[in-house]
Amino acid sequence: MKDEVPNLKDFDQRLRDEANEDLADVIPQEATKETQIIAIYGKGGIGKSFTLANLSHMMAEQGKRVLLIGCDPKSDTTSLLFGGKACPTIIETSTKKKLAGEEVAIGDVCFKRGGVFAMELGGPEVGRGCGGRGIIHGFELLEKLGFHDWDFDYVLLDFLGDVVCGGFGLPIARDMAQKVILVGSNDLQSLYVANNVCSAVEYFRKLGGNVGVAGLVVNKDDGSGEAQAFAEAVDIPVLAAIPQDDDLRKKSANYQIVGTAESRWGSLFAGLAEAVSLAPPVRPTPLDQDGLLDLFDGSDTGAGVVLEPATDADMRGKYAEPKPSLEVIYDEA
Amino acid sequence: MKDEVPNLKDFDQRLRDEANEDLADVIPQEATKETQIIAIYGKGGIGKSFTLANLSHMMAEQGKRVLLIGCDPKSDTTSLLFGGKACPTIIETSTKKKLAGEEVAIGDVCFKRGGVFAMELGGPEVGRGCGGRGIIHGFELLEKLGFHDWDFDYVLLDFLGDVVCGGFGLPIARDMAQKVILVGSNDLQSLYVANNVCSAVEYFRKLGGNVGVAGLVVNKDDGSGEAQAFAEAVDIPVLAAIPQDDDLRKKSANYQIVGTAESRWGSLFAGLAEAVSLAPPVRPTPLDQDGLLDLFDGSDTGAGVVLEPATDADMRGKYAEPKPSLEVIYDEA
Repeated sequence: MKDEVPNLKDFDQRLRDEANEDLADVIPQEATKETQIIAIYGKGGIGKSFTLANLSHMMAEQGKRVLLIGCDPKSDTTSLLFGGKACPTIIETSTKKKLAGEEVAIGDVCFKRGGVFAMELGGPEVGRGCGGRGIIHGFELLEKLGFHDWDFDYVLLDFLGDVVCGGFGLPIARDMAQKVILVGSNDLQSLYVANNVCSAVEYFRKLGGNVGVAGLVVNKDDGSGEAQAFAEAVDIPVLAAIPQDDDLRKKSANYQIVGTAESRWGSLFAGLAEAVSLAPPVRPTPLDQDGLLDLFDGSDTGAGVVLEPATDADMRGKYAEPKPSLEVIYDEA
Repeated sequence: MKDEVPNLKDFDQRLRDEANEDLADVIPQEATKETQIIAIYGKGGIGKSFTLANLSHMMAEQGKRVLLIGCDPKSDTTSLLFGGKACPTIIETSTKKKLAGEEVAIGDVCFKRGGVFAMELGGPEVGRGCGGRGIIHGFELLEKLGFHDWDFDYVLLDFLGDVVCGGFGLPIARDMAQKVILVGSNDLQSLYVANNVCSAVEYFRKLGGNVGVAGLVVNKDDGSGEAQAFAEAVDIPVLAAIPQDDDLRKKSANYQIVGTAESRWGSLFAGLAEAVSLAPPVRPTPLDQDGLLDLFDGSDTGAGVVLEPATDADMRGKYAEPKPSLEVIYDEA
């Protein structure tokens, strides 16, 4: 696959150059040594924000200092923590304050609940601008607010679902986190996304990056086993399996935190907190498409389906040229 | 809001310049007059591919000529149609054929089922490159394959969930479709995304664009009414309300097409097909954040929650400077 991509060598060089531009020393080594910076990825709708809100709440309950940063332009990471309320984003607040000739104070953008500190980066105006540049801008603002002087055991970053383009792969490309946590379920699409993130991690490791995968959180687990098999195949641990359960679904929809010792789900999140803390960042062994399909029963992935190719005449329909007649045409002359 | 964005005028000009570069005449007016090109948008996991697979199948059953094009780098649009099987993508196939010194034939990338023609564009390699450029590249390849000579009543485009950056807003920015269909449900996040797409449509209309919104498909409708209220507020019709139903969920998970007269859900999709066909592209009136929140019960959106701001000392924790003592210190000297 790699050899089929034209100009990959040049591309690598461009990427290296770019990597040295803006952010090279945003998070220097001395800061990251005692603070674990953890980025979470997974398909849209799979439960990243649900997992992070409850994980961060549980970590804080255990006496850890936790900062939760939403990096999805939808700015929905912190709403579960804040009972559905959206908190003002760093980028939006900064723009407003700048125009008013004022400085952003930490209390304008960072809020507390149950010992968790939480903020939202915000993003580019919808449909315009690059998501990656939005993230760079947001982290520059974080720096100005004093990021390097803060004292946290864990900084949890919630990124947009899919690593679809360079912009949202930035935290992996630029060592902005030490560990990546994946969220997936027992379906092909969410494991496809998780596998893609593994590919991105492995790609940037080969370029000298340091990010590793800490493991997989299986969400909405119905026990069918594909996510577990995926984790084994790509050689990463399962950090927790959160069951498909109506009680969980309803509580989440009603913005109730279950990552607390007071909930019947508390021990599940306590276990996740411990696993996240201890799991080392490892280099995964991403699967190819066939390897991914092999995790599933063939009937679920169209093993028996034979694709029927379209023809040019099919596509042209009524515009297709009439077939040459087989009748013999006698010359009139 | 608009006035707060620095250099917007320059940005508009850059966008106009860019808009005139590559794709200005990819889909000329004479082709689009008889072919309806329709793009679908919605939050990840909300059911875009489910809706399009069944809608396209129903349209074909009604005798229409339908081409379904997956434009999400995950390439999952057509898998429901093909019993879970992934079809080779245009970008990937083109790269392989080029290296082998061969031409791409239509039968390599376009496949048929139940009268629907379907293909996947593919996307950039994960974590690298720009999603928007991937889409441009894919449509250039479509042109080479003869897009302008094809005879379809409907071309349905399935884009990535969120219009988060310029790349995935491209079809709206560049008039690549005449109509946009939104998919949402009775939850704040999916309506937030739908509202964002309305904002993007309205923004590009002001710049001279022609894309309009045909309406909203309410998926997983539990009857609570927020999606319906959203459609009324932004002044677009509800094209169909697909109920939250276990039979539908299971059939979809098992790759069963329900957009057929043989299914008990057939009439629902027949109604959707008619509504999609007839609904004119309109200019929506997007809501601001408060307007969006007002659609929901206050208890669902944290109306009673007071955010507790963090302080600088909070953030610095053990690194915070000790408070100046209030005791009087007597000079030793």
